[in-house]
Amino acid sequence: MTTICFIGLGHMGNPMVRNLLKAGHTVKVFDVVPEAMQALKSEGAIPATSPQDAAKEASLIFTMLQTGEQVLKTCLGEQGIFTQLASSALYIDSSSIEIKATQQLHQEAKQRKLGMLDAPVSGGVAGAEAATLTIMVGGEEKDFEQAKPTLELLGKKIVYAGPGGNGQAAKICNNLILGISMIAVCEGFSLAEKLGLDLKKFFEISSNASGQCWSMTHYCPAPGIIDKAPSNQAYQPGFMAKMMLKDLRLAQHAAEQTQALIPLGAEAAELYSLFISQGNGELDFSAIMKFIKGLK
Amino acid sequence: MTTICFIGLGHMGNPMVRNLLKAGHTVKVFDVVPEAMQALKSEGAIPATSPQDAAKEASLIFTMLQTGEQVLKTCLGEQGIFTQLASSALYIDSSSIEIKATQQLHQEAKQRKLGMLDAPVSGGVAGAEAATLTIMVGGEEKDFEQAKPTLELLGKKIVYAGPGGNGQAAKICNNLILGISMIAVCEGFSLAEKLGLDLKKFFEISSNASGQCWSMTHYCPAPGIIDKAPSNQAYQPGFMAKMMLKDLRLAQHAAEQTQALIPLGAEAAELYSLFISQGNGELDFSAIMKFIKGLK
Amino acid sequence: MTTICFIGLGHMGNPMVRNLLKAGHTVKVFDVVPEAMQALKSEGAIPATSPQDAAKEASLIFTMLQTGEQVLKTCLGEQGIFTQLASSALYIDSSSIEIKATQQLHQEAKQRKLGMLDAPVSGGVAGAEAATLTIMVGGEEKDFEQAKPTLELLGKKIVYAGPGGNGQAAKICNNLILGISMIAVCEGFSLAEKLGLDLKKFFEISSNASGQCWSMTHYCPAPGIIDKAPSNQAYQPGFMAKMMLKDLRLAQHAAEQTQALIPLGAEAAELYSLFISQGNGELDFSAIMKFIKGLK
Amino acid sequence: MTTICFIGLGHMGNPMVRNLLKAGHTVKVFDVVPEAMQALKSEGAIPATSPQDAAKEASLIFTMLQTGEQVLKTCLGEQGIFTQLASSALYIDSSSIEIKATQQLHQEAKQRKLGMLDAPVSGGVAGAEAATLTIMVGGEEKDFEQAKPTLELLGKKIVYAGPGGNGQAAKICNNLILGISMIAVCEGFSLAEKLGLDLKKFFEISSNASGQCWSMTHYCPAPGIIDKAPSNQAYQPGFMAKMMLKDLRLAQHAAEQTQALIPLGAEAAELYSLFISQGNGELDFSAIMKFIKGLK
Repeated sequence: MTTICFIGLGHMGNPMVRNLLKAGHTVKVFDVVPEAMQALKSEGAIPATSPQDAAKEASLIFTMLQTGEQVLKTCLGEQGIFTQLASSALYIDSSSIEIKATQQLHQEAKQRKLGMLDAPVSGGVAGAEAATLTIMVGGEEKDFEQAKPTLELLGKKIVYAGPGGNGQAAKICNNLILGISMIAVCEGFSLAEKLGLDLKKFFEISSNASGQCWSMTHYCPAPGIIDKAPSNQAYQPGFMAKMMLKDLRLAQHAAEQTQALIPLGAEAAELYSLFISQGNGELDFSAIMKFIKGLK
Repeated sequence: MTTICFIGLGHMGNPMVRNLLKAGHTVKVFDVVPEAMQALKSEGAIPATSPQDAAKEASLIFTMLQTGEQVLKTCLGEQGIFTQLASSALYIDSSSIEIKATQQLHQEAKQRKLGMLDAPVSGGVAGAEAATLTIMVGGEEKDFEQAKPTLELLGKKIVYAGPGGNGQAAKICNNLILGISMIAVCEGFSLAEKLGLDLKKFFEISSNASGQCWSMTHYCPAPGIIDKAPSNQAYQPGFMAKMMLKDLRLAQHAAEQTQALIPLGAEAAELYSLFISQGNGELDFSAIMKFIKGLK
Repeated sequence: MTTICFIGLGHMGNPMVRNLLKAGHTVKVFDVVPEAMQALKSEGAIPATSPQDAAKEASLIFTMLQTGEQVLKTCLGEQGIFTQLASSALYIDSSSIEIKATQQLHQEAKQRKLGMLDAPVSGGVAGAEAATLTIMVGGEEKDFEQAKPTLELLGKKIVYAGPGGNGQAAKICNNLILGISMIAVCEGFSLAEKLGLDLKKFFEISSNASGQCWSMTHYCPAPGIIDKAPSNQAYQPGFMAKMMLKDLRLAQHAAEQTQALIPLGAEAAELYSLFISQGNGELDFSAIMKFIKGLK
Repeated sequence: MTTICFIGLGHMGNPMVRNLLKAGHTVKVFDVVPEAMQALKSEGAIPATSPQDAAKEASLIFTMLQTGEQVLKTCLGEQGIFTQLASSALYIDSSSIEIKATQQLHQEAKQRKLGMLDAPVSGGVAGAEAATLTIMVGGEEKDFEQAKPTLELLGKKIVYAGPGGNGQAAKICNNLILGISMIAVCEGFSLAEKLGLDLKKFFEISSNASGQCWSMTHYCPAPGIIDKAPSNQAYQPGFMAKMMLKDLRLAQHAAEQTQALIPLGAEAAELYSLFISQGNGELDFSAIMKFIKGLK
């Protein structure tokens, strides 16, 4: 079994580490919050004193952090882990971060002849716990093949998206479509209800017609349609509204950088912002249904 | 075989009448354009001198017109066909019109004890020709049962949506979602391309993930993905951009009337308007991909 | 002194009639709410039994109603006042209504050789009471000259906008700009505050720079800047948010009819709708500042 | 006369340096493009070999660059000018950059006990040439007083906006309002024209009513109203559309950072992006009138 380094032990990192430990790996962990390390010690993880300490000697190094700035700081500079990695080591960033930051990391890794994959995940905390995440991976194909068996301990669908940066790109573009289509479904169901349609009837019609989308058929924001959807659990997440907003902001930054046009994406981001500004950021993102229905 | 009256012989009405004739029905037809009637005479249709002339003695009366005003004018008033209908006759409006107009027609029909269904269709000219339309029907269930065998000559999926008006409502709400999600997919694919993703790869990922929607998997606006999609036929319709805009305007009017909120629907309508204002109204609605990609 | 007919005695009509009475005119009034007529009887107005009863024998006939449908119903048809007017009479509609309805009324008036002006007002209830309304007038110039002395009893700025319909058009286009620029000012001041600018300082800068607009310099939505602005009276109207939404909807309908593009107007309408959906319709329209600041 | 350092000799920097030279100052200049330095040599400027070379010994140091990244790189790090400045020197950044970058610079300056002002300008190339810029200044008041006489050589209106960062903040918030209200005016005039209003008449009405704004009364985007406006010079800038987009992006980033809500600002940014994507970035920003009128 390999020695794995895992930096970033939050809501997502914690269960991911547990899954690596379950499979028998040695996992050295680091987090700026000491309690987060302690919580995993009893499971068998080895707390480190710094990112560099965690990274040295590991053959696979994961980061699962919140922002591009955090990842850049962890990897680069004199205190960065890139100075510690063996040339045979493979660095995997599973954070969801700016395209620009990912590109910078790949470039630095290349210059140092380090292997690197960007491997953001989707599926939320539940997916991390159940090891059913979807993981979209960018980097060299041989590195992907090397990482795959380990990634399969963390998720169910491990997809190779292409060269470095394409993992982040795929996630951002997918979630751009998701964020918009979720509001589209909210608007359709809200209007349907006000026009006197029975919502189960409307679902039956539209899910078999050109309005069909994942937001409707797997995660319907109107209660009473899809049993397991957050709309039937008082909109407990699932995938928090503020995380969806984060991803839409990543899409906006990527669009700015590449001069792509995403007018509905921008509008969707504003709607989530308005919704969140009223204190709803930790509800599931499908709770924007309440906003569209005119409820406070 | 019944005698059927069909008023409105445009792109949609013409092939619908042909399908009724093929099944052996007697069809009396009317259109304000005499040539439109002549074109169907050789197929066996019987031209009438007025809507009233076409409607009297028929047991099923169809209208397939462009606007609510046209339908109201055809049905109501001294010259309207409602004055001519036998109490056993059933009136079916297959036009896509304002909810308000549909509601007024149902009310007037009720007062006169006439049977009425609103039965807008989706599937476009190709669907009308191939008799593969989806038909969403509102009205009393017994009237639906009576009309069903005839509607099955015109379409493949005949759905009962509920009481009077619900056929229009279902179509409007479905197309609201469709109009938005189509642009969402354009934005996602355009951004993906600019970020260097292979679009086939991105399709493979997103169509199996939370971004999936009918606009992507059945009608992908990026060429090279779905063979039969208009994007692979130089965006020849299909479903014209100006017809999508019409449906989004119907959604806006319905939302105004019921105080529903459709912010992304409003934004999508503006984007189609901008696109159409540059001379693109008769392209397929998925051609808005070109606009999102920044092409003139 | 002339005999004037005034139909529609709501918040605006009531003070307008008082001003006409004060000037010594005989005013016959009608409203569907009997109490509204009684309230003016003691002031000297003469209640009528119907619109037709009010209109006959008057030389100037005003309507001040809420919707185009109400005005059309009052004027046209067998029960309409147009059947009662002398050819020397002049009909003035001061309601804010659809361009399409105004155009229809002008057309009908022309066919009957009746004089007509569309003369919507701005200035709100306070302006109506103080006779300081701005009145934008469309119609023939000679009719404008005839009406002017009377209109000057009601407002301070009486502007001739051009042929029939241009009064409504001018008001709609002005309020379109107003509705958008109000939100622009809210966004600018809200962002300025969050960035740590002193708002009085920012006002001093921007009101003397390219961001200057009436919404800022006469009606600033941030409290503490313009003494008399509703923002300093707990956002009591003034001009209600729901009335601004009505005007933006009129702009959207006019844009649809003429294929004009008003993307920011559409977006502003959606923002007012969202704001109103949370129970704020009767606050001043500048209260949308609260929504932009993220308050419930 | 003082020795002034000026780094960044583009469209804006060049005429600003000329104005400093005219007043008799010694100006040491630097630009990464050698030709830009040569062009000013004949006017009396002294070319430097590096930013550090330009900055040492100067008592006032200006930067006028395009992005926050460029300014950060010029000031900070081992090669940065902050290492060269005397404690009596005053650093002035006139670039329009990210709030975040400005804040970082002020912080670094403070730690090194250097005086610093952020002093972005508005007025464009014409204002720079004519020394009629508006300059919005953030920093300590004593530093403002020290810089004021020099700034008055460059602009006509020199405004103190408050503590460090407030100059940038004021400009960003002002231009946010400007960018939105310009499109508002385009929409109002375009709709007015389609409704048959004479535009001079509409201008007369709205410029005296609640729709009034600087974009209308000083810079009307409809030709034929304001003689000197770019709309009467085939939309030659003036202030380029792409520069307006840059400022709206700065506003979006500032809003993200502070969780401010700017939905219309976001929408306006998307509209300028769409307009620019069709090849119009170097036209004046008021040329978006063409887009709103539906022209390619």
